[in-house]
Amino acid sequence: MTQRIKMICSYDGSAYRGWQRQSNANSIQAVIEDALSTMHKHPIRITASGRTDAYVHAIAQVFHFDSEKELDEYHWCAALNSMLPKDIRIQKAELTDAGFHARFNAVAKRYDYLITNRIHDPFVQKYMALERETLDVAYMRECAEVFLGTHDFTSFTSAKIDARKPRVKTIYSLDIKEEDGFLRMSFVGNGFLRYMVRMMAQTLIEAGKHRIAKAQIKEMLERRDKHVCRYKAEAQGLYLVWVSYGGKEDESELSYAYHTLPSCVR
Amino acid sequence: MTQRIKMICSYDGSAYRGWQRQSNANSIQAVIEDALSTMHKHPIRITASGRTDAYVHAIAQVFHFDSEKELDEYHWCAALNSMLPKDIRIQKAELTDAGFHARFNAVAKRYDYLITNRIHDPFVQKYMALERETLDVAYMRECAEVFLGTHDFTSFTSAKIDARKPRVKTIYSLDIKEEDGFLRMSFVGNGFLRYMVRMMAQTLIEAGKHRIAKAQIKEMLERRDKHVCRYKAEAQGLYLVWVSYGGKEDESELSYAYHTLPSCVR
Repeated sequence: MTQRIKMICSYDGSAYRGWQRQSNANSIQAVIEDALSTMHKHPIRITASGRTDAYVHAIAQVFHFDSEKELDEYHWCAALNSMLPKDIRIQKAELTDAGFHARFNAVAKRYDYLITNRIHDPFVQKYMALERETLDVAYMRECAEVFLGTHDFTSFTSAKIDARKPRVKTIYSLDIKEEDGFLRMSFVGNGFLRYMVRMMAQTLIEAGKHRIAKAQIKEMLERRDKHVCRYKAEAQGLYLVWVSYGGKEDESELSYAYHTLPSCVR
Repeated sequence: MTQRIKMICSYDGSAYRGWQRQSNANSIQAVIEDALSTMHKHPIRITASGRTDAYVHAIAQVFHFDSEKELDEYHWCAALNSMLPKDIRIQKAELTDAGFHARFNAVAKRYDYLITNRIHDPFVQKYMALERETLDVAYMRECAEVFLGTHDFTSFTSAKIDARKPRVKTIYSLDIKEEDGFLRMSFVGNGFLRYMVRMMAQTLIEAGKHRIAKAQIKEMLERRDKHVCRYKAEAQGLYLVWVSYGGKEDESELSYAYHTLPSCVR
């Protein structure tokens, strides 16, 4: 009898070349799979809600796998955490039905992008983007409206993306908030293409410096041309904050993981 | 004509095996000396207020060196920062008189030790000590009184310390403060022996768990035996916060560096 397990994990991505297992580099997926495989004494493969790029962090990434082990939810967390490095932490385990799929069932995601002007602070460099110039936040908010709603985001993704993949995504909200010493942009949408958040984030940063106007951003989006946007914000400012599966429990789950964070990245 | 330069720097110590240059490992001193040597096209040696151990951080470490270059204080910072990795930042440069010595002239230092119970937070593990148990902070404060004043701290230092070195030090204050999600112990003294702060910190943590009583701590201190204390807190929770040279400018200098920090480690 196998059981499908859903897990929520947080990670400090600074030491990893991203989520996805690679033959020649350290990835979060490989570290978790290796720990689970050692535990099971046979190979275990896990499936996440989606990949995160090198150096990108997660507050609540979700993944699933199947296991013949009979552990309760508490002991799944405890056993796996005892085998993982401290920069990857399992926040929650759930025994779920065999139909659950971490990628296909995800209905929404939130990504946050953090920017600071504390350029002389050695402690934020792996956790926020550094920006020396003053940003016109009101104008950034105005420009952010361009991205709201359903669009073909071909202009805001990697040039290397598979041509057959659908590029139509819906952005439900894009909030820009000034916090203590940094700026937080929160993107909530039904899905995001590769580099999409980082390209939108840097476009808004450039708008904040008046290097690009709202009309130009609109034009870029409408062009649906993957060579039109040259902006991409640095990876270390990006956090996968939560993944929603449409359940009512989402809020508390997410806020649980969320509040374990230091106030500087919350 | 050579000029003596005093510099204040901050560093995230997580990627370094401590301040002191070592033949086989990455040290903060070596990184700064190498950058200065490249700039000068001949070897430059720097002298700090004291060493910090592997993985220990600094908000405001002080060092000096001599240079024949004619740069003003602003350009010293800018030039050196442009050559340093982002986890080591020069906060201030000062053209000082030839008699200034970063180690011998230091009259006081402050070290902070940070402890959190956010054991599932992957983002604090390199910046605070993790403690699962609840600590009796009131009792820790009571026990901290033992260390105040002038004592021979032989019991609270490394067994490997040079026998000829004086072990009498004065602790001016030892404050324990509950902050948002963590506990901060601040040690101010005229000087600290190797491992002294970490050994006092762990002794107080053990007192907070009622594993050791105030009378026992007093007895340990009075024994002046370097084998008597087996406690040593982990390096990643320790910050060299400031070094005082008795000048009236200290306060503003220090608070400058201090306030560049994220709120979680302030």
